[in-house]
Amino acid sequence: MTVRLGANQYGKAENRVFRVYRDSARHQIRDLNVSTSLRGRFEDAHTVGDQKDVLPTDTQKNTCFAFAKEKGVRSIEEYALTLADHFIAAAPAADGARVEVEEYPWERIAVDGAGHDHSFVRSGSGIRTTVVNVDGSGADRRAHVVSGINDLTVLKSTGSEFQGYLKDKYTTLQETDDRILATSLVARWRYDSPSIERGEIDWDKSFDGIKALLLQRFAEIHSLALQQTLYGMGESVLEQHPEVAEIRFSAPNKHHFLVDLSPFGLENAGEVFVAADRPYGLIEATVLREDASEPGSAWHAVPGFC
Amino acid sequence: MTVRLGANQYGKAENRVFRVYRDSARHQIRDLNVSTSLRGRFEDAHTVGDQKDVLPTDTQKNTCFAFAKEKGVRSIEEYALTLADHFIAAAPAADGARVEVEEYPWERIAVDGAGHDHSFVRSGSGIRTTVVNVDGSGADRRAHVVSGINDLTVLKSTGSEFQGYLKDKYTTLQETDDRILATSLVARWRYDSPSIERGEIDWDKSFDGIKALLLQRFAEIHSLALQQTLYGMGESVLEQHPEVAEIRFSAPNKHHFLVDLSPFGLENAGEVFVAADRPYGLIEATVLREDASEPGSAWHAVPGFC
Amino acid sequence: MTVRLGANQYGKAENRVFRVYRDSARHQIRDLNVSTSLRGRFEDAHTVGDQKDVLPTDTQKNTCFAFAKEKGVRSIEEYALTLADHFIAAAPAADGARVEVEEYPWERIAVDGAGHDHSFVRSGSGIRTTVVNVDGSGADRRAHVVSGINDLTVLKSTGSEFQGYLKDKYTTLQETDDRILATSLVARWRYDSPSIERGEIDWDKSFDGIKALLLQRFAEIHSLALQQTLYGMGESVLEQHPEVAEIRFSAPNKHHFLVDLSPFGLENAGEVFVAADRPYGLIEATVLREDASEPGSAWHAVPGFC
Amino acid sequence: MTVRLGANQYGKAENRVFRVYRDSARHQIRDLNVSTSLRGRFEDAHTVGDQKDVLPTDTQKNTCFAFAKEKGVRSIEEYALTLADHFIAAAPAADGARVEVEEYPWERIAVDGAGHDHSFVRSGSGIRTTVVNVDGSGADRRAHVVSGINDLTVLKSTGSEFQGYLKDKYTTLQETDDRILATSLVARWRYDSPSIERGEIDWDKSFDGIKALLLQRFAEIHSLALQQTLYGMGESVLEQHPEVAEIRFSAPNKHHFLVDLSPFGLENAGEVFVAADRPYGLIEATVLREDASEPGSAWHAVPGFC
Repeated sequence: MTVRLGANQYGKAENRVFRVYRDSARHQIRDLNVSTSLRGRFEDAHTVGDQKDVLPTDTQKNTCFAFAKEKGVRSIEEYALTLADHFIAAAPAADGARVEVEEYPWERIAVDGAGHDHSFVRSGSGIRTTVVNVDGSGADRRAHVVSGINDLTVLKSTGSEFQGYLKDKYTTLQETDDRILATSLVARWRYDSPSIERGEIDWDKSFDGIKALLLQRFAEIHSLALQQTLYGMGESVLEQHPEVAEIRFSAPNKHHFLVDLSPFGLENAGEVFVAADRPYGLIEATVLREDASEPGSAWHAVPGFC
Repeated sequence: MTVRLGANQYGKAENRVFRVYRDSARHQIRDLNVSTSLRGRFEDAHTVGDQKDVLPTDTQKNTCFAFAKEKGVRSIEEYALTLADHFIAAAPAADGARVEVEEYPWERIAVDGAGHDHSFVRSGSGIRTTVVNVDGSGADRRAHVVSGINDLTVLKSTGSEFQGYLKDKYTTLQETDDRILATSLVARWRYDSPSIERGEIDWDKSFDGIKALLLQRFAEIHSLALQQTLYGMGESVLEQHPEVAEIRFSAPNKHHFLVDLSPFGLENAGEVFVAADRPYGLIEATVLREDASEPGSAWHAVPGFC
Repeated sequence: MTVRLGANQYGKAENRVFRVYRDSARHQIRDLNVSTSLRGRFEDAHTVGDQKDVLPTDTQKNTCFAFAKEKGVRSIEEYALTLADHFIAAAPAADGARVEVEEYPWERIAVDGAGHDHSFVRSGSGIRTTVVNVDGSGADRRAHVVSGINDLTVLKSTGSEFQGYLKDKYTTLQETDDRILATSLVARWRYDSPSIERGEIDWDKSFDGIKALLLQRFAEIHSLALQQTLYGMGESVLEQHPEVAEIRFSAPNKHHFLVDLSPFGLENAGEVFVAADRPYGLIEATVLREDASEPGSAWHAVPGFC
Repeated sequence: MTVRLGANQYGKAENRVFRVYRDSARHQIRDLNVSTSLRGRFEDAHTVGDQKDVLPTDTQKNTCFAFAKEKGVRSIEEYALTLADHFIAAAPAADGARVEVEEYPWERIAVDGAGHDHSFVRSGSGIRTTVVNVDGSGADRRAHVVSGINDLTVLKSTGSEFQGYLKDKYTTLQETDDRILATSLVARWRYDSPSIERGEIDWDKSFDGIKALLLQRFAEIHSLALQQTLYGMGESVLEQHPEVAEIRFSAPNKHHFLVDLSPFGLENAGEVFVAADRPYGLIEATVLREDASEPGSAWHAVPGFC
């Protein structure tokens, strides 16, 4: 029998990098969770324990913090690309690098109607994310960016149906033309490769636009099923954002069951629900352009998708 | 040796009650986590397993959902008081009842600049809470209300010092006149008993005012220590809210340590920090009026306070 | 209006102290989570931000690690008492100190039927805890020890009834003479003050004995209700452990509901259950000796008890 | 622009199925968390909201519970394969089905030295898992089984080095020939396709053997790096378990840093460590046979692997 090393990667996960821009009294902050990893020809480290090719995860950590100062964090995508290119150059055995960044949202605290200069409160729903994969360097370099949002928790108190489905001997569910639809959305969109190469994407603006559009479309679409809502949301993103090649959703259907109040002589016309934890429906879907650029390693080690 | 039953309570915890008001096309929602419990003369249930005095926790659950329809949820405090009084009446062996409610914040999704009628997104920082304790009924009834906010995560990127502290042989900390101050605040305020009895408190308005004031004061106060910031916040609440007798804080000092970038030839003038998880400072303090009404059982089984 | 500082405490929470004893090739390990706090006359820190009386939480952290070497960790109770006494001496404004320790269980990895010298695997159910409160020093010193176990998850697949309970108009629960009983137990027992003072308690042995007895009694008692099971468990602990003055339980009733399989033409005679998350029953009770020593501050800031 | 549906799947996640075998007074229990999903030609559900091909997630849930009675749970792998085949037959639009099962470990409570008939305590470290993927039916059927273990937390207090690694300008880590090595291991192994087809695998026995072997090898191997430890563990599994084609590891390097006690005049020769939370190293690697069977869809939607 011959045994060998297959796919592998290693790195430092969850570096909590907090960057303050204090060029003026009005501070800007970026609050990040950064995970880096390298993949490639690291057989010796695994098979005989020889570390000569291994850039330590501790060094990767140091670099994340040093680059926050040296290169800055103009957007999480740019910061991640800069780190990935650096690691490929620093570790010759690395064929590829993966950098994942989460960014936590903050807003200025209101004092007398205006945002304070240096005091902030954690805000809103949804954590911005990016996963950058870079393969190779120089002429062979291929850079991939999958950005997204986690935990965008949304709910419709009406405007949602679920009817006409397939039934078998284990089906007991009643059809309904009015239910609560709720989810804690994970969306991830892959940026078009030529747009990345041309450096023409305004990352912050693209994120803000897509987030607002996802919310708007969730509100507007009369839902026949969570699948159809997600597809409609994705279709709008592709229509309005030419920089996006593809978008994927992972959406738990957070069930809100109508409570039977009839034992207590009470009607319940869509007024009282129990919000359930488990089990939950889980809907995962991809919407993409027919002529989308090739994904390459873009989805390498992106968590939780079909 | 004689052994006996001491303090006890029992109930149903974490009923996830979701209430929709659909009187018009513009829905209102209240998203609650409700925990109820009874205490009193339940010796027989414990010592011989006789349940004749025990109103089942399943019945308590049913009542939470039924009352959301029958009595409604105008505010979490009023809903909790109504439940507590009911349980004392329903279970003659109960001397007291405790009802805790958490309320999750939602805001309307913006579509074309206006909030949508029935589509919502989870919002903001901080979960509204109340713990209601009622002892007895009729002329002997005493009702206590401790409301508050959990997980209000705030941060100052400057305007915080820590100097002049006591030192001993285990002290290595350097004094500083400029650090990041961050916390995930838990605040709980006890309402003045006569104000509760007179029914003169506008619960929603009081909560909104106190939350805004806590944020404002956190922003405004130049911090010499987290203790002094909390005290100043509490003092303002007592000054501006006569309905409040006392306020307690539990505030983890979420350390953001300045990263030493000198090994890499970089200066770090308050720009790059590592956000630490554990350990964290934990500051707990009470601010109260000299002439505050007696607390009675107000703080009974309120989690996490000194 | 006059406002003043009330009860307060401050300290460093969740110091993850890991201690290796390597006196021989056969290592011993103790894996701890240590939280310390001081309470007392700290008005100046709060009201005017003067830190002169404040022993920093960073110093408390350093002391936890230094003492793990200097004094050792023979048991978590002894280690906590040593720290508490030290802090009261080190901070003259402190009237009392509270030290909480969790200890995570590990066992040796089996190799060829024997436990390995220095390789371990996390084991079992239940985390050992202690909360030590010391007031004063010298002749006025009062030391309190409340030890316990968290998250001891146990289940009976039969031998549990629930019948004969109080019913009202909101009761729909069916009585049963055979159900699953499951809980994730928190137990905390207060040690008798004279026994502490005489230094006659073998802390590790007492813990091991009580844990085994709790499990055994849970297994043996035919349950008429969770209350009666807990009382029986507590009674046995008090009978067999004279060093214990009082024991408190907090036990979620982790419901396992029988699934209705009749729509599919299947019987379900106690064979298939759904394990529910929320809501859960929550039973809290104290069992104590009639002639127990006075608790003093023993239960100060012990989480989650009635 | 043309937009279309890409990869998709939907199902019910985290059904908490609890199965009791009560054929004799000595009960057997299996405590499961079951997630099912279907993938295939579900365009109409997404693009126009037509559910005619969609077997509801609620029906999938019912089937999980019904099959626990009807077909039983002899092992999680067999139960999952049975469910997957059923769903492909029940939903003609489904090209494939994925069933994931976690099983929580319990052991009998010891009473007078013997395990109790119907009382259990949650035990040990590590949650058994399986992810089954089935494509097609009849002659075209392909069944894949990836089983594993989650959260197997292990630690060596010596016998671990880290030296001779690549250094660059961001490297500050000191080399060491004696450190603590700790991880919370996730291992997943893919079973050989011909062995699955021949039905010759004893699933419970295979799991028990691999778990014991992983622990033993972790203990025995003198570690030059976590990579080399993992590779050695994987190599042994492939050598001793011909039914396994490939094994993958995801292992956080849970850092235990030696505490500098020199400011307090104390030596620290590997005795006192701080257990850190974040960041952590993350090592992911695959070990496989040269002549392993083709994976097909075996790794479809398996979480967290490279």
